[in-house]
Amino acid sequence: MKQDGFEDIGLAKIDTDRKNRTGVGEIIFGQGKTAEQMDKIVRTMKEKGQDSILITRLDAEKAGKLEASLKPDFSLKYFSDARIGVIGEFSTSRSSDVENAKILICCAGTSDLPVAEETALTLEFLGNKVERMYDVGVAGIHRLLSYQEKLKNASVIIAIAGMEGALASVVGGLVSCPVIAVPTSVGYGASFGGLAALLSMLNSCASGVTVVNIDNGFGAAMAADKIMRLTEK
Amino acid sequence: MKQDGFEDIGLAKIDTDRKNRTGVGEIIFGQGKTAEQMDKIVRTMKEKGQDSILITRLDAEKAGKLEASLKPDFSLKYFSDARIGVIGEFSTSRSSDVENAKILICCAGTSDLPVAEETALTLEFLGNKVERMYDVGVAGIHRLLSYQEKLKNASVIIAIAGMEGALASVVGGLVSCPVIAVPTSVGYGASFGGLAALLSMLNSCASGVTVVNIDNGFGAAMAADKIMRLTEK
Amino acid sequence: MKQDGFEDIGLAKIDTDRKNRTGVGEIIFGQGKTAEQMDKIVRTMKEKGQDSILITRLDAEKAGKLEASLKPDFSLKYFSDARIGVIGEFSTSRSSDVENAKILICCAGTSDLPVAEETALTLEFLGNKVERMYDVGVAGIHRLLSYQEKLKNASVIIAIAGMEGALASVVGGLVSCPVIAVPTSVGYGASFGGLAALLSMLNSCASGVTVVNIDNGFGAAMAADKIMRLTEK
Amino acid sequence: MKQDGFEDIGLAKIDTDRKNRTGVGEIIFGQGKTAEQMDKIVRTMKEKGQDSILITRLDAEKAGKLEASLKPDFSLKYFSDARIGVIGEFSTSRSSDVENAKILICCAGTSDLPVAEETALTLEFLGNKVERMYDVGVAGIHRLLSYQEKLKNASVIIAIAGMEGALASVVGGLVSCPVIAVPTSVGYGASFGGLAALLSMLNSCASGVTVVNIDNGFGAAMAADKIMRLTEK
Amino acid sequence: MKQDGFEDIGLAKIDTDRKNRTGVGEIIFGQGKTAEQMDKIVRTMKEKGQDSILITRLDAEKAGKLEASLKPDFSLKYFSDARIGVIGEFSTSRSSDVENAKILICCAGTSDLPVAEETALTLEFLGNKVERMYDVGVAGIHRLLSYQEKLKNASVIIAIAGMEGALASVVGGLVSCPVIAVPTSVGYGASFGGLAALLSMLNSCASGVTVVNIDNGFGAAMAADKIMRLTEK
Amino acid sequence: MKQDGFEDIGLAKIDTDRKNRTGVGEIIFGQGKTAEQMDKIVRTMKEKGQDSILITRLDAEKAGKLEASLKPDFSLKYFSDARIGVIGEFSTSRSSDVENAKILICCAGTSDLPVAEETALTLEFLGNKVERMYDVGVAGIHRLLSYQEKLKNASVIIAIAGMEGALASVVGGLVSCPVIAVPTSVGYGASFGGLAALLSMLNSCASGVTVVNIDNGFGAAMAADKIMRLTEK
Amino acid sequence: MKQDGFEDIGLAKIDTDRKNRTGVGEIIFGQGKTAEQMDKIVRTMKEKGQDSILITRLDAEKAGKLEASLKPDFSLKYFSDARIGVIGEFSTSRSSDVENAKILICCAGTSDLPVAEETALTLEFLGNKVERMYDVGVAGIHRLLSYQEKLKNASVIIAIAGMEGALASVVGGLVSCPVIAVPTSVGYGASFGGLAALLSMLNSCASGVTVVNIDNGFGAAMAADKIMRLTEK
Amino acid sequence: MKQDGFEDIGLAKIDTDRKNRTGVGEIIFGQGKTAEQMDKIVRTMKEKGQDSILITRLDAEKAGKLEASLKPDFSLKYFSDARIGVIGEFSTSRSSDVENAKILICCAGTSDLPVAEETALTLEFLGNKVERMYDVGVAGIHRLLSYQEKLKNASVIIAIAGMEGALASVVGGLVSCPVIAVPTSVGYGASFGGLAALLSMLNSCASGVTVVNIDNGFGAAMAADKIMRLTEK
Repeated sequence: MKQDGFEDIGLAKIDTDRKNRTGVGEIIFGQGKTAEQMDKIVRTMKEKGQDSILITRLDAEKAGKLEASLKPDFSLKYFSDARIGVIGEFSTSRSSDVENAKILICCAGTSDLPVAEETALTLEFLGNKVERMYDVGVAGIHRLLSYQEKLKNASVIIAIAGMEGALASVVGGLVSCPVIAVPTSVGYGASFGGLAALLSMLNSCASGVTVVNIDNGFGAAMAADKIMRLTEK
Repeated sequence: MKQDGFEDIGLAKIDTDRKNRTGVGEIIFGQGKTAEQMDKIVRTMKEKGQDSILITRLDAEKAGKLEASLKPDFSLKYFSDARIGVIGEFSTSRSSDVENAKILICCAGTSDLPVAEETALTLEFLGNKVERMYDVGVAGIHRLLSYQEKLKNASVIIAIAGMEGALASVVGGLVSCPVIAVPTSVGYGASFGGLAALLSMLNSCASGVTVVNIDNGFGAAMAADKIMRLTEK
Repeated sequence: MKQDGFEDIGLAKIDTDRKNRTGVGEIIFGQGKTAEQMDKIVRTMKEKGQDSILITRLDAEKAGKLEASLKPDFSLKYFSDARIGVIGEFSTSRSSDVENAKILICCAGTSDLPVAEETALTLEFLGNKVERMYDVGVAGIHRLLSYQEKLKNASVIIAIAGMEGALASVVGGLVSCPVIAVPTSVGYGASFGGLAALLSMLNSCASGVTVVNIDNGFGAAMAADKIMRLTEK
Repeated sequence: MKQDGFEDIGLAKIDTDRKNRTGVGEIIFGQGKTAEQMDKIVRTMKEKGQDSILITRLDAEKAGKLEASLKPDFSLKYFSDARIGVIGEFSTSRSSDVENAKILICCAGTSDLPVAEETALTLEFLGNKVERMYDVGVAGIHRLLSYQEKLKNASVIIAIAGMEGALASVVGGLVSCPVIAVPTSVGYGASFGGLAALLSMLNSCASGVTVVNIDNGFGAAMAADKIMRLTEK
Repeated sequence: MKQDGFEDIGLAKIDTDRKNRTGVGEIIFGQGKTAEQMDKIVRTMKEKGQDSILITRLDAEKAGKLEASLKPDFSLKYFSDARIGVIGEFSTSRSSDVENAKILICCAGTSDLPVAEETALTLEFLGNKVERMYDVGVAGIHRLLSYQEKLKNASVIIAIAGMEGALASVVGGLVSCPVIAVPTSVGYGASFGGLAALLSMLNSCASGVTVVNIDNGFGAAMAADKIMRLTEK
Repeated sequence: MKQDGFEDIGLAKIDTDRKNRTGVGEIIFGQGKTAEQMDKIVRTMKEKGQDSILITRLDAEKAGKLEASLKPDFSLKYFSDARIGVIGEFSTSRSSDVENAKILICCAGTSDLPVAEETALTLEFLGNKVERMYDVGVAGIHRLLSYQEKLKNASVIIAIAGMEGALASVVGGLVSCPVIAVPTSVGYGASFGGLAALLSMLNSCASGVTVVNIDNGFGAAMAADKIMRLTEK
Repeated sequence: MKQDGFEDIGLAKIDTDRKNRTGVGEIIFGQGKTAEQMDKIVRTMKEKGQDSILITRLDAEKAGKLEASLKPDFSLKYFSDARIGVIGEFSTSRSSDVENAKILICCAGTSDLPVAEETALTLEFLGNKVERMYDVGVAGIHRLLSYQEKLKNASVIIAIAGMEGALASVVGGLVSCPVIAVPTSVGYGASFGGLAALLSMLNSCASGVTVVNIDNGFGAAMAADKIMRLTEK
Repeated sequence: MKQDGFEDIGLAKIDTDRKNRTGVGEIIFGQGKTAEQMDKIVRTMKEKGQDSILITRLDAEKAGKLEASLKPDFSLKYFSDARIGVIGEFSTSRSSDVENAKILICCAGTSDLPVAEETALTLEFLGNKVERMYDVGVAGIHRLLSYQEKLKNASVIIAIAGMEGALASVVGGLVSCPVIAVPTSVGYGASFGGLAALLSMLNSCASGVTVVNIDNGFGAAMAADKIMRLTEK
């Protein structure tokens, strides 16, 4: 750990050592930051040599402002579904190595799509290949069961669901690979903003399922990426 | 269970086997879906032969967009009270069989009307006859007690209430038929978005009351419909 | 409703009109009552003509005391698994009528057995035939799926599960009959005494599942009994 | 307010001014105090001229110890149902004045008896006449309704109930006098130690019901006593 | 109880017997009702002979619509602070009787004013005289203590506070009259919408304080009114 | 304590004795007050001789209205980051005394800046010198560790963090001075509006960390100021 | 998925297909099962060819009974720290393959040892080599930092902590490998049985940390084992 | 920070650098540790030169075992009220310096005594002089107000209270020194194990009150000690 591995710009201390330490460079958490603040952070990161920058939880309005303020120096690509902004290129260096390592992203319903896309785009940004398997919730379990071959061949599965989040347990009981569960805030009433799905996934009877925060597609992607890197060593 | 009983359109996997399996075809949960997504889903369902389609939790703005985009191919009828959209006809095939089977929908106050209407319309869409008994909350219990004959003759009663949800227990203690309780989010402060009514109904001292999610008039209707079908076998 | 339909013995007011009103006579909730209190209540019920008496939530120690104090006038049969005591005979009058109406009691794991047995015994006490299908949790979903024929033929299914309670949703998606879900307190940590399973079941994506209180096998049995009686009319 | 109106004995500061200020002398909250501590407190109160002393939340074991240690100077009378200990006499001075002022204590079930008795004994200790109306829960509402005359004639009603606590709302809708609701911890599962009944009572649709803490029969008695004193002025 | 004491207009069943039963006529809970619905309810109540009508939780926009639709038949007076609408006159019949009975409304801070005014106006509507004592929170307790004479002379005190709600306990310890506590949603963070104040008040160490729902100034007023009526008998 | 140390203006009772009692004059909590109310309060405080006035939780819109209404008598300076308004001058009298006493304000991320600035400005308003150390969260702990000299030399440290709030524990384990922890509402999902950080900080394994309410930068500043004053005695 | 891959013994349906499906055979969750039930389950598993059997959450008393009842047919080895029972041998087949793959088990304090040992023993049972690094909580962060080499070389790290659970975030920020966080119930008061640590870990600012249930050392071990198997393919 | 400042004994890593870093040596948290584990830890600390050792949350039974096992090498003094064990002498080196610096420990009732004594003993162990002011809860506020001189002269006040915890706010409004609030688990029902007092204290309207965990007298003592040390610099 290099104790001088950061750049202090007052409102932020850019962690220039992060890639060295954790394998992935600094990523910007867009929520609660102004476009002006993000503009300064992006410019510092670029100066310090980070080519590709991911911004998560970036709403459309701020994305527009940031895109405008970064011009003409840098261009921001915005993915509204996933609320993600990207400056620079997606990583491709690792993608040929992971040819046969499939990360499978399952989600229970169409309403879970924003979280699923945040997951997928983050993984692709980091150079992973992913397969999307959307709307395979347990209310029509034959949909999921018809893909047993794909489930068996996956290296990592990310199971995304709101409401009662039962998808994670069912997937967890069918496969031998690591399963990362993402509860979503899809639902109403006693879903309590995703709490029902979160508790459900934490109590999964299928052993070995691990869980991230509600709607945290980004976190699940980071965890899956770390597992994939391990298999490449 | 037919494992191929669905149609994959990427953003959704339409469960074309659902009617065969559960007695009722696919229903669209409108919340969290865009009008564009629903348009695609509706068209696929229609292609696959589902004549009548119910969309729940559909707000007025999205309903307007969807109605426009479906034109002129299909027409959407929107019920703003119940936040329900219907494409095609209400089922009538079963209604003659249920002539004497009354489903009674009681709600505690006028503010519970949106949930009560979601219940009523869903049941009517599925071909059931319902009787509406609104504003019979326990603060003026003589209103409810004056309908004891109707309560006794009902086959299924759906008791809808917010605040403290006492209606479910009182009804449950008066009748021998199944009672389905629906807590609503009507109230403020320590109602915690319907939690007070939910807990109240789950702890009903009148044995045999079952409960659905807060504001889930649709779910109560589905449960009541299943019970009614059972009596018709 | 007969306003004089009860017997006042000070510590209790025995509801002698309950059978007439709700189809089932008074049942004693054993928790929080002393053996002495229950002895008095039982004797009054017997005097008032109720032949068979069910006591729920009766722990072994109190059951012993009550059995002793009722002797030699009445004999108590105690079912320790279900924490149920019965005085008099199980009802048999209805059992021949329900020959083909199967109530299926599914539970997720062996640890759910006490709740499952409370359900089963209550239903049998009321004169119903039940089939027990234990340990069919979703961690090994092929167990449940191998019984699809039985699931399809059931009139009512009671799905009992602790931990994440996913069983209710999976069953709910496979069948057309009413499904009553019972969350259990089996689990630890973030199961929060059954809260996780309760929320999970309330948010079931399989529409039409209704829910009772945590560990309330008795309540589920009462609801199922009411549905069965409806089909017999 | 006399700032010197107390006696400091180190482990406690006896409020010798309380009767002057609030109309009722110091009362000992027994929970969390040792018998030795209570012995010292009682002796100081006696020295300072308080004749009758009430100790609430006093379990049987501590009551035994305290009774022994106070002997032969003072005698303790213990009411195990109510977990109350009394030293000295019940107040009688006010009882003739309240001849026609009836405080009615209703409880929903036999299991609520300990809280109901705590309420009743506290009121009687303070010199009030009370009428007990036990086991009038809403599962058999005809029991309550058969007492409408008594309900109408009461000056204050205390409605005590666990589980869903619906009794408070029903009583509140029937009468014009003040109703004080006491939620009890009777129940299991989603009663969450009385939370369900507490929330239910706080959200009562019958306007004007006020609520005290779970199982706080003592507090309800104190509030009722204050109201009764007001009518005597 | 007259079982026919109501008027059924479909969306509501007007409780025309309420005044007879509870001493106060029907009051309209404005939240969750449309202006159209309230218009119908008001007109029915007027037809049935209720001269003065109180509408609570009425926001400014709906008040405007309702005022317009009721014209020229009836005129609505709107109190924006208290979110209260009144049709007809405030009751004055009782005010002379209560000349010396003071209801004291204390609130902790200026931000609690809307709840305090809801309380005050409701009481005045019902014919009570009230004294307002605002901004006497415990952070500057000398303000409250300087009014000890008024506190002592009050017949009923309503203590309104958000944040930690300590005002109720302090007032409760100073007086012998009934104290009704109203927690408000004033605060942020760990006040959790008034939960902190609610729990604080329920656990008041000053015995005899009773509590109503968060922000429920109306409920506190109704309870105080019932107590005042009792003293007039 | 002077019982007459306040000014009653009806909607508020200005605590003119507060500076004498607590060392700091009255401060206005802007949330829930209208600009009109604040205008009156400010004018009274000015009349009573308070030169400098701090208003917290003041949103931009109200600040604009208040600024306008106070003109030309008084001028309001608004700090939008901190949601703070100041009338009059910042205190400077103490600043020379505290030359060597450094208050260090650490925050975990850029999104915590509003709370950090509320803290910093309040402290500066009260005459303290502060050092800002922003964006030193534990995800890149070398940033914090590179400032060990500054951490060691601080007299008081305020550790501000949302999400999991681990910063407080890490700082608490490194230093011997008092550490005041401020949880923020930065985060989403299972942060539950700052609850996760709050609980985390309350359970800090670094002994001696004390905690204030979520987002309560003002409260932390007041506590730090009190400690600093103590060292000056 | 073989739908007949189980053995039905009434009280349980042994999942004989689990090893084939998920890579690890059936494991017995001891909590809530009687010794008699476990005896039957063990014997069936043995008959069906499972040589080594792990029983988790097995308390000492039941372990004694089970050991006695299984004799002389099978011998049970009990690990009281970890509350784990093992019948048969630990797996060794994989251990030579994982020579260089280190799983690091970090725990924050000595009180977390039971959970840490449950994790370690489960992993060893499954044939993994683990390194224990106990008592490295952030209150003395130099302890953790002195092992940076080991942290960097690990393939998977399991971070176990109660109280505020900050260890997971600090570890997560230092390494590039997957980190699985286990909250424990160590603590008191506002730790709410491990809830504080759970929420803390779910909100970790170190991206890519995944979480299991409170005290679920077993689940973390299962997840780590799955990751390790992946690297061996 | 010395990265080698600890002693690894497997089950613990004794932080031998803690005194240097935080001013106070390692303290043992007794809860969740066996007497055997504590014996080893104590012996290592002694070997490494720590003369006086404090053990908190030590129950009587474990204290007995530990005392026996440490004999004859070391002697343990046990304080049962405070659940504290001490090996070696209380620090006296600082006590002469703090002659005029008074730490005042206020608690609301006699039932709060165990927490108050944990606070007092910890402070005395660390060489501070404390004054105990017990049973000054707000139900009899004249008791507290009679000590205004002492309150004014204190350097730090620790306010300890269960139930609604109002003591902290009242004290906070009376003084200019730092106030540390300790919620206790004294109470029942809706005190939810101290949650009511915790929330109350976090929302204190008296600005500058800081809070520690429920029942955490030790933590409050550590924070007060740090403040006192600051004044001695």
